[in-house]
Amino acid sequence: MESVTKVRVVIQQCLKAKLEVKPSDKDRNGSEYVEIGQGMVIFICFKQNASEDILDKIVKSVLGVKLCESKSGKLVSILELPGDMLIIPQACLGGKMKGKAVQYHGLIEKDNGVKLYHSFVELCQHMVSNNPKSIEMGTVVKNGIYGNRQVLCMDTNGPFTHVFDF
Amino acid sequence: MESVTKVRVVIQQCLKAKLEVKPSDKDRNGSEYVEIGQGMVIFICFKQNASEDILDKIVKSVLGVKLCESKSGKLVSILELPGDMLIIPQACLGGKMKGKAVQYHGLIEKDNGVKLYHSFVELCQHMVSNNPKSIEMGTVVKNGIYGNRQVLCMDTNGPFTHVFDF
Repeated sequence: MESVTKVRVVIQQCLKAKLEVKPSDKDRNGSEYVEIGQGMVIFICFKQNASEDILDKIVKSVLGVKLCESKSGKLVSILELPGDMLIIPQACLGGKMKGKAVQYHGLIEKDNGVKLYHSFVELCQHMVSNNPKSIEMGTVVKNGIYGNRQVLCMDTNGPFTHVFDF
Repeated sequence: MESVTKVRVVIQQCLKAKLEVKPSDKDRNGSEYVEIGQGMVIFICFKQNASEDILDKIVKSVLGVKLCESKSGKLVSILELPGDMLIIPQACLGGKMKGKAVQYHGLIEKDNGVKLYHSFVELCQHMVSNNPKSIEMGTVVKNGIYGNRQVLCMDTNGPFTHVFDF
């Protein structure tokens, strides 16, 4: 199974989350953040065999899977909730432990990773912008910056962490 | 690979983290929390084929792997940092997506899971209490409650999320 994984996704449920997208300068001024309210934090890692043609399936799976707790306690999808999404590039998900070090072989080359990451974010935004419930509630899809350190604060009501390999 | 996984561990680096271990009553009084400072949040899930004899290897791997950023920027183990640990039971890590639902087959039966979880926490505490650097810095090992909802707040300087299967 492992050897054919193209994309690994880790999903955590959140009440709110905040990601730094521009670090502060040396005087600690000017940090910039993106924030979401209740919804999902989606960490994504592309392996070198990942390509555009798999993205549609992953977006439909991630946005369709019933992992979000509605007010009634029933599990529904992020589109049904409707909730926000924060999509964070996280190449280290592709790491394997070798002795005391972690090796990151088989990761996608950076230019391709950037491209796939942005396509993934756009596909999510497209699905949200075509979902009447999301429009009505004004849910947002936010993203990080590929290759940057992802400084994150998160509040959860149980992170309810899931790992999915595609 | 997947079919023989006995234990799945997800590790996130944190600057601080706080876990509710006793929910508030209906008057919103009396929540109890455990807190850690800089270190690792360790989510752990036991499958039904997990047993005590694998724990020693996992503890040595998790406490020995160089994933923590020291002041100099070098990656070191949690014992070398030295840093705190928050160990959270997270059975949902064993979930597999089937259509729009997630199935949790193959999880360990609850009594055995509780036992293994406590053994794992104790082994971590034991390693920390035998590590001069950890003693000197007064690092702590905290844990959640098996079977409870794990209400968590976390601040990271990059969660640097890793998934390890044993």
